[in-house]
Amino acid sequence: MTTDTAEATQVLDRVRAFVRAELLSKAEYFDGLPEQPTAESARLHEAGLANWWIPAAYGGAGVSLRDSVDIVSELAYGDAGFAFGAFLPVLGTVMLQLHGDEAVARPVLERLVRDGGRLGILGSEEDAGSELNRTATTYRRDGDALVLDGEKYFSTNSEPADTLLVLARSADDDGDYAVVAVPRAAPGVEIVKRWDMLGVRGSGTYRVRLRDCRVPAAGRLRGNGLRLLEIGLNASRILIAATAIGVARRIRDLSMEYAAQKRIKGAPLRENAVFAAKLGQMEMTVDVMRNQCRAAAAEFDRFLAADDPAAALYRVGTLRSALAAKLYCGQAGWQVATTGSEMFGGLGYTHDHPIGKLVRDLRYVAIVEGGDDVMRELIYARYVVPAGKRR
Amino acid sequence: MTTDTAEATQVLDRVRAFVRAELLSKAEYFDGLPEQPTAESARLHEAGLANWWIPAAYGGAGVSLRDSVDIVSELAYGDAGFAFGAFLPVLGTVMLQLHGDEAVARPVLERLVRDGGRLGILGSEEDAGSELNRTATTYRRDGDALVLDGEKYFSTNSEPADTLLVLARSADDDGDYAVVAVPRAAPGVEIVKRWDMLGVRGSGTYRVRLRDCRVPAAGRLRGNGLRLLEIGLNASRILIAATAIGVARRIRDLSMEYAAQKRIKGAPLRENAVFAAKLGQMEMTVDVMRNQCRAAAAEFDRFLAADDPAAALYRVGTLRSALAAKLYCGQAGWQVATTGSEMFGGLGYTHDHPIGKLVRDLRYVAIVEGGDDVMRELIYARYVVPAGKRR
Amino acid sequence: MTTDTAEATQVLDRVRAFVRAELLSKAEYFDGLPEQPTAESARLHEAGLANWWIPAAYGGAGVSLRDSVDIVSELAYGDAGFAFGAFLPVLGTVMLQLHGDEAVARPVLERLVRDGGRLGILGSEEDAGSELNRTATTYRRDGDALVLDGEKYFSTNSEPADTLLVLARSADDDGDYAVVAVPRAAPGVEIVKRWDMLGVRGSGTYRVRLRDCRVPAAGRLRGNGLRLLEIGLNASRILIAATAIGVARRIRDLSMEYAAQKRIKGAPLRENAVFAAKLGQMEMTVDVMRNQCRAAAAEFDRFLAADDPAAALYRVGTLRSALAAKLYCGQAGWQVATTGSEMFGGLGYTHDHPIGKLVRDLRYVAIVEGGDDVMRELIYARYVVPAGKRR
Amino acid sequence: MTTDTAEATQVLDRVRAFVRAELLSKAEYFDGLPEQPTAESARLHEAGLANWWIPAAYGGAGVSLRDSVDIVSELAYGDAGFAFGAFLPVLGTVMLQLHGDEAVARPVLERLVRDGGRLGILGSEEDAGSELNRTATTYRRDGDALVLDGEKYFSTNSEPADTLLVLARSADDDGDYAVVAVPRAAPGVEIVKRWDMLGVRGSGTYRVRLRDCRVPAAGRLRGNGLRLLEIGLNASRILIAATAIGVARRIRDLSMEYAAQKRIKGAPLRENAVFAAKLGQMEMTVDVMRNQCRAAAAEFDRFLAADDPAAALYRVGTLRSALAAKLYCGQAGWQVATTGSEMFGGLGYTHDHPIGKLVRDLRYVAIVEGGDDVMRELIYARYVVPAGKRR
Repeated sequence: MTTDTAEATQVLDRVRAFVRAELLSKAEYFDGLPEQPTAESARLHEAGLANWWIPAAYGGAGVSLRDSVDIVSELAYGDAGFAFGAFLPVLGTVMLQLHGDEAVARPVLERLVRDGGRLGILGSEEDAGSELNRTATTYRRDGDALVLDGEKYFSTNSEPADTLLVLARSADDDGDYAVVAVPRAAPGVEIVKRWDMLGVRGSGTYRVRLRDCRVPAAGRLRGNGLRLLEIGLNASRILIAATAIGVARRIRDLSMEYAAQKRIKGAPLRENAVFAAKLGQMEMTVDVMRNQCRAAAAEFDRFLAADDPAAALYRVGTLRSALAAKLYCGQAGWQVATTGSEMFGGLGYTHDHPIGKLVRDLRYVAIVEGGDDVMRELIYARYVVPAGKRR
Repeated sequence: MTTDTAEATQVLDRVRAFVRAELLSKAEYFDGLPEQPTAESARLHEAGLANWWIPAAYGGAGVSLRDSVDIVSELAYGDAGFAFGAFLPVLGTVMLQLHGDEAVARPVLERLVRDGGRLGILGSEEDAGSELNRTATTYRRDGDALVLDGEKYFSTNSEPADTLLVLARSADDDGDYAVVAVPRAAPGVEIVKRWDMLGVRGSGTYRVRLRDCRVPAAGRLRGNGLRLLEIGLNASRILIAATAIGVARRIRDLSMEYAAQKRIKGAPLRENAVFAAKLGQMEMTVDVMRNQCRAAAAEFDRFLAADDPAAALYRVGTLRSALAAKLYCGQAGWQVATTGSEMFGGLGYTHDHPIGKLVRDLRYVAIVEGGDDVMRELIYARYVVPAGKRR
Repeated sequence: MTTDTAEATQVLDRVRAFVRAELLSKAEYFDGLPEQPTAESARLHEAGLANWWIPAAYGGAGVSLRDSVDIVSELAYGDAGFAFGAFLPVLGTVMLQLHGDEAVARPVLERLVRDGGRLGILGSEEDAGSELNRTATTYRRDGDALVLDGEKYFSTNSEPADTLLVLARSADDDGDYAVVAVPRAAPGVEIVKRWDMLGVRGSGTYRVRLRDCRVPAAGRLRGNGLRLLEIGLNASRILIAATAIGVARRIRDLSMEYAAQKRIKGAPLRENAVFAAKLGQMEMTVDVMRNQCRAAAAEFDRFLAADDPAAALYRVGTLRSALAAKLYCGQAGWQVATTGSEMFGGLGYTHDHPIGKLVRDLRYVAIVEGGDDVMRELIYARYVVPAGKRR
Repeated sequence: MTTDTAEATQVLDRVRAFVRAELLSKAEYFDGLPEQPTAESARLHEAGLANWWIPAAYGGAGVSLRDSVDIVSELAYGDAGFAFGAFLPVLGTVMLQLHGDEAVARPVLERLVRDGGRLGILGSEEDAGSELNRTATTYRRDGDALVLDGEKYFSTNSEPADTLLVLARSADDDGDYAVVAVPRAAPGVEIVKRWDMLGVRGSGTYRVRLRDCRVPAAGRLRGNGLRLLEIGLNASRILIAATAIGVARRIRDLSMEYAAQKRIKGAPLRENAVFAAKLGQMEMTVDVMRNQCRAAAAEFDRFLAADDPAAALYRVGTLRSALAAKLYCGQAGWQVATTGSEMFGGLGYTHDHPIGKLVRDLRYVAIVEGGDDVMRELIYARYVVPAGKRR
């Protein structure tokens, strides 16, 4: 894990250069549901930045989650959808590296480093929604193989992925949940459709069917699948939250650009006190979002640095700080987006200005990987009801 | 003015039938910037509902603004953009009927009744924004004619309109503002572009150039053009506010439909207490928005019913209740939209569900015809600073 | 009921004079839990204003609830606690006049007019809270008498009241709820304590015990006690909501007074744009609160004007508009109070300025007679779940 | 500075023990404007905890500001007013240790350690409010002495203080601001009154007059007084923000206690979904407030650990993170207080429940040492307008 700040700064500089060169001027293109994988993903890999968090043990750059918050903020400043697609594999790599069979996990992780590819995670279903314990997809043992059947609702990166991690329930035991690694190319895996999302359209999200899909039994990760997802979601939820930082910073900077040329009551908008108050509030919000994401990520990093990180994270499951990061950034980011959507007058209500896309992009923070209701419930059940866990 | 409640109810029933038949199922079509005028506008006219507020003296149905609030709520339930385009001529007809030369106003108003057409109002400009006193478009007297020059930024209905009402400043006297009736077909009127709006895309909004545009001097409405616009904006702002009622009602009903089939924690969503709290809050908001719009409209109707409505409205100018209606409905409607945007899980973040369009549509309430900052400033300057006007 | 606007204006002028003479300068006194009844209540009666809504049929002024909204706004401008104590009997007089035995109701209502006294309503209990269907107080029939036993938690005006209306449950039939008129002087009625309230301290609220309290059976009002309370609460909730208008107006006016002398950045505060924005928002809120309260009150008045008002109100029970008024004014008023509490710098955080009391006073709107959660639940259950009642 | 976590934990345990023993059960006493210094301050000193942040170089415990955040959260859990009084000397000690003449600063700091006393800082004035650059208090040179004249508006701890730090302006040069150390006992120092504050009444805040008050010239701290105050305010604002954490935690715990015994709809309140959502939101807020305060404090600690901390802090002045901490915690804490004020039904609106005091206490966060408007302006002017400082 990068502990060297100089190194972290250097990575961040490269990310910023990438954003300027490859993302910033392509809002319309990314907003147009570009085919996956995009040429820009390939360029991220060429720049040595794809899947940046994968540990050195697998050949990766091993950037900490703490530093990943800043990287995601920068990528999302360029395009939130691109950022989302780029970091989301972390949800799966964490599960694989901690709870996967070495023979299964290592080649997948090494390929992700080598090829800069994607990993798909298949959790949500149409009826179950975010209630993963209501998963209807099943797996059954058949000799050395597991056979999966079911249909998954929202799964980002599944189409271009090399490997899929699928949450399924034992056909024989309702209470037994597993996460199973499935090669994307396995027979029976079918992409039903790509979703026409409202925002983060630079990423690809799919509906996926698994029909009589047979994979080696070693692909099952160790432990209760529901708990494994909780562990991985810590990382991805923090980085989803971090996209709000990037989008909010972009809105702030667009506001300042606008205020530099716009006049109101005969004076530059940037000298207007009401405008100043809005921007002051916005900058405060950016600062607080950033510190919450960083603190949550640093807590996750501390678990990863434990003697037995797999056991430590398995014990704790979903982290309060990660839930709080996603809940807070979803709400606070939306306030920034709301302010932003009123900032540019009539022009801001047209496609001639980027604010409309930023508002749509930002909205996803409060929706994917559990909405605000789910975050509040989890925080309450896990960290408020048990008196000893309140802090 | 309709004072007969039975008559009002009957009109409303016809509006509802129209909405069901012509609007409700066409979300995608209206969201696609349909060519103006739409076939549905023609059908609204066939149903005897186009420009419903024009007084009987001009052959119109003479529906009160109070009842128009309910009509607009219904139309916006179907499509906010269609509603916007349909009621916006009121901004101009009010000015024409109160302050226009009879020889100019009567034929325009009678044609609007006979043909069910549109009226365009050209106020905002690129540099001036909502600050109409910074209008750069000029008019100059040339014999019996006025010659207009300038470029207007956002003007809804201008392309399909029969007549345009243009705010201009005397080329000779900076402090002299006029509203001038300009035939759409007059030489020198040029539609520069149609805006690609984020929402209310069922309406058409244009950028319009006036170059050496010569019209009869009688086309100038009586009085200070800035004040005339204030008068007309009372009516249109109240009805813009009323669109928020319709969109919010639609979001409520979609939520209840969803809750009827969606299950959460093994029980129907409609029995969920957190869902109930959201819907209770939403229904309260709808009720308050409706009562504010109705009260503001009734106040406007009382001015129209005065002995000399032109003088009475000219004296008062912009109404507190109308400003408050737009300000409140823009904010409260946005809260409903925000709740709605999180109501439908991942599906609600795709184009497979109508909520995305409703959120975009609703946003316009706080933006067009003066943003929230402008509303607050006007309320403060006109109704708080003068101690005698506080109430 | 007063329909004559001139008459209404005249009453309002007298109320304003009373407020200036008797309330405005006595903040400290009213905030000190003054003994009940206060000398000011007597003076309100001398001015012919006590219990102003009681119908002419009982010798009262018969002011409509619509006009009562404005009266309460004025009284609360002076002191919210005084206003609360003064209008709260309406909750009981409505029940009495519509559902009481004439032989019981008439003398009580006539005495209220003649003496300007109070009526106490005993609903809430310690365990039941606002869930009146969990009332533990019982009544049992004993010959021509009813015998009541129980303890009521929060009851305003009970100590100085002439008559108490008590919600009780049949000792023999759990599902039978009654409202029973009990003379304050009846043996067994005991005032346990006066509550040391946080705000509205100009009123008196008591904990009351009923022990083997025997009253004539005719004192039982006709119909289900829970429904009777719903009917009466319509009136009192609307007027509770209306107190928020008065307190908010007071905060606005104090803000303007302060801004007239306070300088910020070398200019008068009243010219400051951020201050203007706050006051514009505040004035909008006042306008919307007022229109909601008036609309709700007018709806209630329409029910009272029905051919058989008792039956009409019994059928409908709790009104959406009344629930919405209390819910909205509790929330919106609190926003005004929050803004107000930050308006006066450090001084506003001391007892040298009245804002602290106003904030405490305003808080009661969202708490008494059902908190916001209760309002939302009722609106949802009664007006959203039944599709035909949505509007 | 404490970097040893074990040591920090140990200090925190002692603080918690102190809170349980000395603060928790004394709400009424602290709310009664107890005489200063209180017996509890003495006991804090006996426990070795008074002025805990003063560096070891002066004999102090040298606890970091990062760890002080947690200490203040614990103290404020017990009583926010006591906490405020206890930590506020940090505003002055930071200025003294960095910019004071050693001969002046050392004895003051050593006495604070030895006696556990207080330091008063005199900044705000009646006319200037929070605009310190409008300070009217003057100093003039007279031989080896400085002579001060003026009146200060809000100054906490001044009465029981050993030393006062006074912001004054040169009588000869309007643009020259100084902070001057004045012995509390110096002739000419007069406590005009103690303010009757709305909350944090366990602390003492005073109005102080300086009349012809003569002190040694060495008492003037090095540098521009306005900048010195910015430096000290970084520390005190972060700790003011941290009191919101403590009060919010207390509200959360009181809510859970209440929910353990309160039943709603026949089930324990703690199982109620709407209650759970409120507490989930509250716990999130606590987590975010804590992380923001800690991050801001850690940033301040990094400046203090610089090679030349005086120069480093003098260059940067007011810190964005500190401004953001106070602004955020003032707003977010108030949301928690608002929720709390509605949590306990009618009881929560009486002095029989502690919530009223907690709400009043919390309010101070957004008011003292610059209101929210001031925070927003500073953030905007210092960290948004200069493009290079945005982050």
